[in-house]
Amino acid sequence: MKSLIQFDQDGRLTHFLTIRGLNRETLSEILDDAESFISIGERQIRKVPLLRGRTLVNLFFEDSTRTRTTFEIAAKRLSADVINLNASRLSTNKGERILDTIRTLEAMHTDIFVIRDNASGTSHLLAEHMPPHVHIINAGDGRHEHPTQAMLDMFTIRRHKKDFGDLRVAIVGDILHSRVARSQIHALGILGTRDIRVIGPRTLLPTEIERLGVNTFSDLDEGLEGVDVIMMLRLQLERMEGQLIPSSQEYFRRYGLTTERVRRADPDVIVMHPGPINRGLEIASEVADGENSLILEQVTNGIAVRMSIMAKVMDGQNSSQEADK
Amino acid sequence: MKSLIQFDQDGRLTHFLTIRGLNRETLSEILDDAESFISIGERQIRKVPLLRGRTLVNLFFEDSTRTRTTFEIAAKRLSADVINLNASRLSTNKGERILDTIRTLEAMHTDIFVIRDNASGTSHLLAEHMPPHVHIINAGDGRHEHPTQAMLDMFTIRRHKKDFGDLRVAIVGDILHSRVARSQIHALGILGTRDIRVIGPRTLLPTEIERLGVNTFSDLDEGLEGVDVIMMLRLQLERMEGQLIPSSQEYFRRYGLTTERVRRADPDVIVMHPGPINRGLEIASEVADGENSLILEQVTNGIAVRMSIMAKVMDGQNSSQEADK
Amino acid sequence: MKSLIQFDQDGRLTHFLTIRGLNRETLSEILDDAESFISIGERQIRKVPLLRGRTLVNLFFEDSTRTRTTFEIAAKRLSADVINLNASRLSTNKGERILDTIRTLEAMHTDIFVIRDNASGTSHLLAEHMPPHVHIINAGDGRHEHPTQAMLDMFTIRRHKKDFGDLRVAIVGDILHSRVARSQIHALGILGTRDIRVIGPRTLLPTEIERLGVNTFSDLDEGLEGVDVIMMLRLQLERMEGQLIPSSQEYFRRYGLTTERVRRADPDVIVMHPGPINRGLEIASEVADGENSLILEQVTNGIAVRMSIMAKVMDGQNSSQEADK
Repeated sequence: MKSLIQFDQDGRLTHFLTIRGLNRETLSEILDDAESFISIGERQIRKVPLLRGRTLVNLFFEDSTRTRTTFEIAAKRLSADVINLNASRLSTNKGERILDTIRTLEAMHTDIFVIRDNASGTSHLLAEHMPPHVHIINAGDGRHEHPTQAMLDMFTIRRHKKDFGDLRVAIVGDILHSRVARSQIHALGILGTRDIRVIGPRTLLPTEIERLGVNTFSDLDEGLEGVDVIMMLRLQLERMEGQLIPSSQEYFRRYGLTTERVRRADPDVIVMHPGPINRGLEIASEVADGENSLILEQVTNGIAVRMSIMAKVMDGQNSSQEADK
Repeated sequence: MKSLIQFDQDGRLTHFLTIRGLNRETLSEILDDAESFISIGERQIRKVPLLRGRTLVNLFFEDSTRTRTTFEIAAKRLSADVINLNASRLSTNKGERILDTIRTLEAMHTDIFVIRDNASGTSHLLAEHMPPHVHIINAGDGRHEHPTQAMLDMFTIRRHKKDFGDLRVAIVGDILHSRVARSQIHALGILGTRDIRVIGPRTLLPTEIERLGVNTFSDLDEGLEGVDVIMMLRLQLERMEGQLIPSSQEYFRRYGLTTERVRRADPDVIVMHPGPINRGLEIASEVADGENSLILEQVTNGIAVRMSIMAKVMDGQNSSQEADK
Repeated sequence: MKSLIQFDQDGRLTHFLTIRGLNRETLSEILDDAESFISIGERQIRKVPLLRGRTLVNLFFEDSTRTRTTFEIAAKRLSADVINLNASRLSTNKGERILDTIRTLEAMHTDIFVIRDNASGTSHLLAEHMPPHVHIINAGDGRHEHPTQAMLDMFTIRRHKKDFGDLRVAIVGDILHSRVARSQIHALGILGTRDIRVIGPRTLLPTEIERLGVNTFSDLDEGLEGVDVIMMLRLQLERMEGQLIPSSQEYFRRYGLTTERVRRADPDVIVMHPGPINRGLEIASEVADGENSLILEQVTNGIAVRMSIMAKVMDGQNSSQEADK
């Protein structure tokens, strides 16, 4: 995937498609700006006029009420108008029709498209065909990337752990099929994380994953030893039908995060999960609801980080004096 | 159902789950405030900034476009942002998943949840698990209650009849399965209504309903004698399949409200129905569209009353100086 | 269809149901006002407060994400609140239930209804039963009319061609079933177009279409000779099953617009299509994406023209001093 496409001619980030190819400065700017948006969420009136008169289109070719809602709320807090399009019907002849659809929507003077698709590379494809004033945000494309999720995870880690250079981070679950894991690994690497571990059944570990600078473990207890951060992945239940993993009881026994296993990590370990969680499958309820868990804080942070990313890609179009009120 | 849960520690109404357990003063305050919201609906610009920057989530586990729309319009007139979630898919493992879903949404700093579910007690369950700054409004839960409907009915009666102490009110139809009837009976009782009558086929009258202080009738003509208010219920068509009622012709012959039957009531009787009406089943078209009918006025009042209830539950969080413009 | 119903007692346009029966002055006013709304779409903050506090309901009994979205965006740019109702379920007993539904919505003090239905005359029917402060806009009714589409087409032509009196215009495709064609023919006629041609297979040309003052052609090459404007229609794929047209290859061979065929027209010809296009069926990709094509500009213009129409029907209710900011 060419990731240069997410920059404009002046080198500014104009789309947000992939973590790969971004530098530490860009990630840090997004995280820094998100801090200021966090405070907006805590005010009585949670609205700033940054995107007033702008239109954001949620174009979801794959259903995800939860993710769509976070983008909708983030955009409305920036005072944008939001159009939700459940595009799951457009599934036949998709490539060409998606392009015609998005060109049509762009002709309505819409500004930001948030794209979710079960095919890898859809948001790249669309970004290649957009005029400069239109911005694409990847909300998850196939097994490729889910970069806004990774950014909110980095934001959550930074709020609790400060310096990535000292951290040992474990990512646990179905690494092979996970766009979240892929984006997390890139982000952790760019931010200089000392020790990144991926843990899962051998069948769910990509063969050449070490190339990304991570250590692999198929034994959960071993992998969790002394880590500062545990990032659980959601297990897609259809994997069990495909014989890639054994029964759910067996999976939980070997890879479910329990209180006992959390004790192998650093005493101040934080536990994260992109949600929605499968209680008793990849994570025990007492861990999900326990004191190390930041799962709900991740959600809160997700709004602020998405506001930050929206503001970032629109940056070239906004001059400060136009933000009224 | 514990109804104390709808109050905060200072005794303020923080959720709106059930009519039962509210006192006359609280009901009267909601009705009084609704009067001022009525005038907003009649202005050119029908918006006040009371909930600007606040987010209301319509979380409907049971489909109801009509009810959802009234809450959406009411919230937008108060300048809130509205998120509509059709959650009917989340039907398996529901209890736990609803809680996870609403905790997740709450973590996005949403303020009010309007909940509709076909299980009794869902909004109570959710209210028990919410932090103090989150407010639940029950938009109908199973056969239990539909308290906002009852409040708009009380508002409509009060606008036309003034003093509940003198009123004879008939509620007609499928009392057994009706959350609307249950809420109406509580509200009429709290407001001191002199004579509350429930009328319907014996199979559709709850066995111990008299405990609520109502008189029961299975003969419609007899029950309507001299009443000031007739509140019709919508007949769920699936009841006929369950053999609880005979054919629709037979039902209309015995329990359908016709012009002739309206004559048994007081000459100034008002006729109400929560809608949508089944013309020719529980009510004749000429009555529904006749001069005694307040069915459409109920809809108009429903917006004002729901604005009043939203403002009420948010009350502790709003200080007047923050409501700008 | 009685078209007088779209005027109020003072002769002002209060609904927008049909092009037929409008005069040139009314069409020109709408097109003139649309010019000023075009400039809003090009501004940084694309919002004017003309309909602030007003509520527009998109009531679509027939699915059309694309058309619904244009109305939604247009309304939001005018600062209206928008309620989207996908009413496709209400299909049984429709006539009566649509009326009850819209009366209920009207009782919520909603202002504008945008109606799409697969039955001709639905928006007329509803307009007949509305109180004076409620406005109906026809977003396509059966085979009858699609007047807002025709207006955006006229706007697009006028921006490129100026004087209708000199123009030769070809409408190509399934004239018989097309509400778009019907509205276009009326609009072109009212604006004084010199030469209106309809082109299509004999099976898809209405028998007495010449009465509307058009010339008919079943040979595309012949019909395109020297025209200034080509307006393609979308071919509904289900027509082929009904044996009204041959295979898609055969249709494209005889009626598909190719670069070669465009050469028969005037060198400055403009090519239009209401979208979504069927590439390789009624139009070749190289024409759709070519330099004569105005297909995407039509979409852009559609927003401005719909804003103009909304403002127009609301005109009697708006006094200029109330438009704040």
